[in-house]
Amino acid sequence: MQLSKIGEFGLIKKLRTKCKNIPPEILTGIGDDAAVIKQGNKKILITTDMMIEGIHFDPAFTTFYQLGYKFLAVNISDIFAMGGKPKYFFISIGIPKNYTSEDIDELYSGILKIAGEFGVAIAGGDTCASKKGLILSGTLMGSADRIITRSGAKVGDGIFVTSSLGDSAMGLMLLKSQMSDVRSQKLKTRNSKSLLPLIKKHLMPEPIPLKNTSKVTSMIDISDGLLIDLSHICDESRVGAVIYKNKIPISGELADTAKFLRTDPVKFALNGGEDYALLFTAPPDIKTTAFKIGEIVKSGRFIIDENGRKKIFRSEGYEHFKRK
Amino acid sequence: MQLSKIGEFGLIKKLRTKCKNIPPEILTGIGDDAAVIKQGNKKILITTDMMIEGIHFDPAFTTFYQLGYKFLAVNISDIFAMGGKPKYFFISIGIPKNYTSEDIDELYSGILKIAGEFGVAIAGGDTCASKKGLILSGTLMGSADRIITRSGAKVGDGIFVTSSLGDSAMGLMLLKSQMSDVRSQKLKTRNSKSLLPLIKKHLMPEPIPLKNTSKVTSMIDISDGLLIDLSHICDESRVGAVIYKNKIPISGELADTAKFLRTDPVKFALNGGEDYALLFTAPPDIKTTAFKIGEIVKSGRFIIDENGRKKIFRSEGYEHFKRK
Repeated sequence: MQLSKIGEFGLIKKLRTKCKNIPPEILTGIGDDAAVIKQGNKKILITTDMMIEGIHFDPAFTTFYQLGYKFLAVNISDIFAMGGKPKYFFISIGIPKNYTSEDIDELYSGILKIAGEFGVAIAGGDTCASKKGLILSGTLMGSADRIITRSGAKVGDGIFVTSSLGDSAMGLMLLKSQMSDVRSQKLKTRNSKSLLPLIKKHLMPEPIPLKNTSKVTSMIDISDGLLIDLSHICDESRVGAVIYKNKIPISGELADTAKFLRTDPVKFALNGGEDYALLFTAPPDIKTTAFKIGEIVKSGRFIIDENGRKKIFRSEGYEHFKRK
Repeated sequence: MQLSKIGEFGLIKKLRTKCKNIPPEILTGIGDDAAVIKQGNKKILITTDMMIEGIHFDPAFTTFYQLGYKFLAVNISDIFAMGGKPKYFFISIGIPKNYTSEDIDELYSGILKIAGEFGVAIAGGDTCASKKGLILSGTLMGSADRIITRSGAKVGDGIFVTSSLGDSAMGLMLLKSQMSDVRSQKLKTRNSKSLLPLIKKHLMPEPIPLKNTSKVTSMIDISDGLLIDLSHICDESRVGAVIYKNKIPISGELADTAKFLRTDPVKFALNGGEDYALLFTAPPDIKTTAFKIGEIVKSGRFIIDENGRKKIFRSEGYEHFKRK
């Protein structure tokens, strides 16, 4: 069967069934942000992310420094999504012939910058040649006292996000269009104060941990898009969700830019990926600075628009292999 | 600077200096077969290997089942090289459009076969699209009571290998030539009993742990070639080595095939890679079934040929980025 038919999530589901023979000390295997392994009274978290030139990044839009920064940032975000602390990073890298050692040096400077910010050590890896395009594969090990999975959401819980959404998706659109599009040239001149933070959010996302997780029932980082990542929580927790369009936090920069482009900023927040904000569920009265955007319900997935109309939402967002 | 000038090992050396800021619980970081992290009174081993289509494998020569088997085998070999026990495997995979879900299923069957043989659990990973060619990146976690690094070889130690060498390199040469070369067609007809085990050694290497490691002073697995991997032990242990050409174990199949091809089988053993045998040093009187091929000396790297002539050897073998 062609992979475009079953898609990334179909394939993962299939592989998960095939690899079901796991020992009891693996508390969470395939299907969460990170695997959890019990070692004595400690819990080890392991997450792995691959970034491929032409799929996940384009050297025309990013410096190697920014790329290195983002490479570790997305892995740190996965550890934060489980309530953990990132510790050791392992870097496998496939390098094409036309790259210089200065390029790789710059890449590692970006990795080391964010590693320093979050106390992560570079502990090993593998270096080899690539036939075409740069290939990065990172494994980040972390630890946690209490693990938060995708599967603990309860009916009545509030649904929260830790920061404004959609900036990264808009940033990517701006990057992709800025070379050619006349309107975006105008936008650039008029509006560069708004644009740069959006582009930076895409190129160098800053993962932020949730400080107090004691009452959090489930959590995920928004890497594929709010709707698709919320759907993962619903799937794993076997619950439904209602969210309110006008409660979704939008940055001033995204609102500004969307207004100029005559487009709906919330679209970017709902379906755009790579925000690397945390999406979590907790009792609705929890004390938090995060934004409450909805509630967990028994079943169904609904979005209530600005006029109070209730619509079913589907898990739209980025999925590998699927044709758009 | 072009990577072809500094080569894989030059680049690793550079990155190792750059990433020198490591916490004390990391006992061995960049530069050994696996990283070692102390967790309480346990030692965790982590190794990572990338395999890229067109660089490390060619789908014309291997089935996906064989590829999956080898993918985990090379990682298990790294854990064995540190004296450890393999435990949890994380698979990152970049899949091109033209692959089917059956291809990936077959690949995982090969992974699960060897995982079952060695008690390894598949604990997680990342699945994404690749622009061109299949990309595999594996991270294997293991544990060990006593760690054996590359840096403990002592003057006077014997140099040992756990099995015959060169089969894999000959197997690869046969695979590459068998489509076109008339002589190898003849060879195939005359000599297929010898050929198949050589090819199998290349496609599905079987890692074998060393049972008793209590007196072993240093160890590495032979992935790049005997001379280059022995040089790594010399570099890290700051010692020299003398090996005897006629003590290097050669399989009957390799001897047969080399004779027919009028070539020296020992060349394949010295410079051919991917044997995944273990190369270790230990006091010369150690009780072992392994083959003693030489001694650790104060300095210099020498090979003594069948006529007793002493020659300097250089660390020849496979190195990424270097032009041949």
